[in-house]
Amino acid sequence: MTKRTARAVASPNIALIKYWGNRDHNLRWPSNGSISLTLGGLETRTTVTFDETLPSDRLTFDGLTPPNSALLRVSEHLDRIRRIAGIHTPAHVESQNNFPAGVGIASSASAFAALTLAGTAAADLSLNPKELSRLARLGSGSACRSIFGGYVEWHAGETDADSYAEPLAPPEHWDLIDLIAVISREHKGVGSTQGHTLADTSPLQSARVADAPRRLNICRDALLHRDFPTLASIVEQDSNLMHAVMFTSTPALIYWSPATIEVIHAVTTWRAEGLDVCYTIDAGPNVHCLCRKQHADQVEERLGDLPGVIDLLRAHPGGPASVI
Amino acid sequence: MTKRTARAVASPNIALIKYWGNRDHNLRWPSNGSISLTLGGLETRTTVTFDETLPSDRLTFDGLTPPNSALLRVSEHLDRIRRIAGIHTPAHVESQNNFPAGVGIASSASAFAALTLAGTAAADLSLNPKELSRLARLGSGSACRSIFGGYVEWHAGETDADSYAEPLAPPEHWDLIDLIAVISREHKGVGSTQGHTLADTSPLQSARVADAPRRLNICRDALLHRDFPTLASIVEQDSNLMHAVMFTSTPALIYWSPATIEVIHAVTTWRAEGLDVCYTIDAGPNVHCLCRKQHADQVEERLGDLPGVIDLLRAHPGGPASVI
Repeated sequence: MTKRTARAVASPNIALIKYWGNRDHNLRWPSNGSISLTLGGLETRTTVTFDETLPSDRLTFDGLTPPNSALLRVSEHLDRIRRIAGIHTPAHVESQNNFPAGVGIASSASAFAALTLAGTAAADLSLNPKELSRLARLGSGSACRSIFGGYVEWHAGETDADSYAEPLAPPEHWDLIDLIAVISREHKGVGSTQGHTLADTSPLQSARVADAPRRLNICRDALLHRDFPTLASIVEQDSNLMHAVMFTSTPALIYWSPATIEVIHAVTTWRAEGLDVCYTIDAGPNVHCLCRKQHADQVEERLGDLPGVIDLLRAHPGGPASVI
Repeated sequence: MTKRTARAVASPNIALIKYWGNRDHNLRWPSNGSISLTLGGLETRTTVTFDETLPSDRLTFDGLTPPNSALLRVSEHLDRIRRIAGIHTPAHVESQNNFPAGVGIASSASAFAALTLAGTAAADLSLNPKELSRLARLGSGSACRSIFGGYVEWHAGETDADSYAEPLAPPEHWDLIDLIAVISREHKGVGSTQGHTLADTSPLQSARVADAPRRLNICRDALLHRDFPTLASIVEQDSNLMHAVMFTSTPALIYWSPATIEVIHAVTTWRAEGLDVCYTIDAGPNVHCLCRKQHADQVEERLGDLPGVIDLLRAHPGGPASVI
């Protein structure tokens, strides 16, 4: 071959039960299992072209050349794919997001899910979904969940080989809406990969991990029974547990902005007033406001009125990552 | 007797290692030990008059009659004093603060320390400081620390009888300044007494308690050696640990306001720039900014420029509660 190319699309996901901390950082083998919703409407599109005429791997992101650290991480992932395929060809990776990167919308999840699909397709590999999920995980932990659509569970696994995601329920199971209150488009100071390595410096991480099976059970059941009040309380508690570990790490990671707290208090008040909405926050200041579809327009309007919210993104249960 | 009266003054204190959660709620026997600084400049002045002509206990606070729940709690404390003194005389309690109550400046600590001193003096009791501290604790846990001046440690105790505070170092040991950024004067929704009962609903409380001896040792040593950088990091971690437990209780207690986060980020940035300042937050939105005296004016000016800070109080290491 001289050139082999493939293109894939993947959506980010919002963790309802969060991944934070690893048993093995290099393998991104997580300390606890997690559950997520794949966010339809938000997409990363990635083209991988293996090209023997290239001197080395190349990466363009939204038409621009990103920092070298990003290329390095992508090259390491291409190496995993090349190793399986038994090839040594450099690749050009072109990637585009339709949503802002690095502000806590899990852009690395959709990026590495799309890269895994496009890369393996371009290398003529035929992997099953579990294998794709496990492979995506090695590039970015939460990417293993973005391989699937709808509601997804990532099993921590008894060994690294068991650590992959599986679908819990398809997108049409429950038409929840995620309204993402964008607080800031500034790139966050400490990325998730670095953050995960700090988790065990918190005196609270082992208690958070030990309690994870309880939270996973409650969340899974609430999703399967479409029980919003139960989902709301476990999702908020789990998000607060992750930020509790972050706040108490050394150094402390405080991703919240003033407006993050503003949205937290607003959402809590609105739910007390009868709107089915709850909050969850990833490694950034933005607040994901998960709501039942019938209340989404009202929540969207109210969020738009909060002074600290500079933008709003709307996502619905999305489909799996796929080659296009 | 027909009338016996005594007056006392006490200052609130700011916990550097926090009290949160009890082994016995009725006895206010705490889950972990704590360390505090008594806040000179802020005062509660309380007069207790045992008066046989009164039909029952009376309470006035800043010249007004407070809610009945406050009278009930004061009466229970008077009952403890009357029991020791072997009297049954009703009392009139008049109390005044020179700082706002119920916004996270530990007003119940100075209130019950002053009440304990004035009440026992009016009842002609002669208790030693440990006995006074233990007695004050039964009215409001952190009041046991306000019996003493300067830097104070409250031992959790092997039994309830061992649970009292003792001085660690006198006020003149280290001239730290506490600049209290007042975020809101609104009375907080959930008071500390009720909050303590929720601590054990958090999956993190037992890990926080188990780690307390480490934090107490680091904080005690940092105080005794006047080591500000070490003090700053343990004080902030301990405050975040308490709020981590609060955030993850059922129901969640989120005392922080948007401006609380604003001050947290500002203080962290200022310290990175070379100012000796750290933050600690009690059960309310206000932020105590502890700083070395030589940096206090600069920190005060910067705090005054933050839009979310509506008022600033300044305290220095204060003296013990005393009869006046």
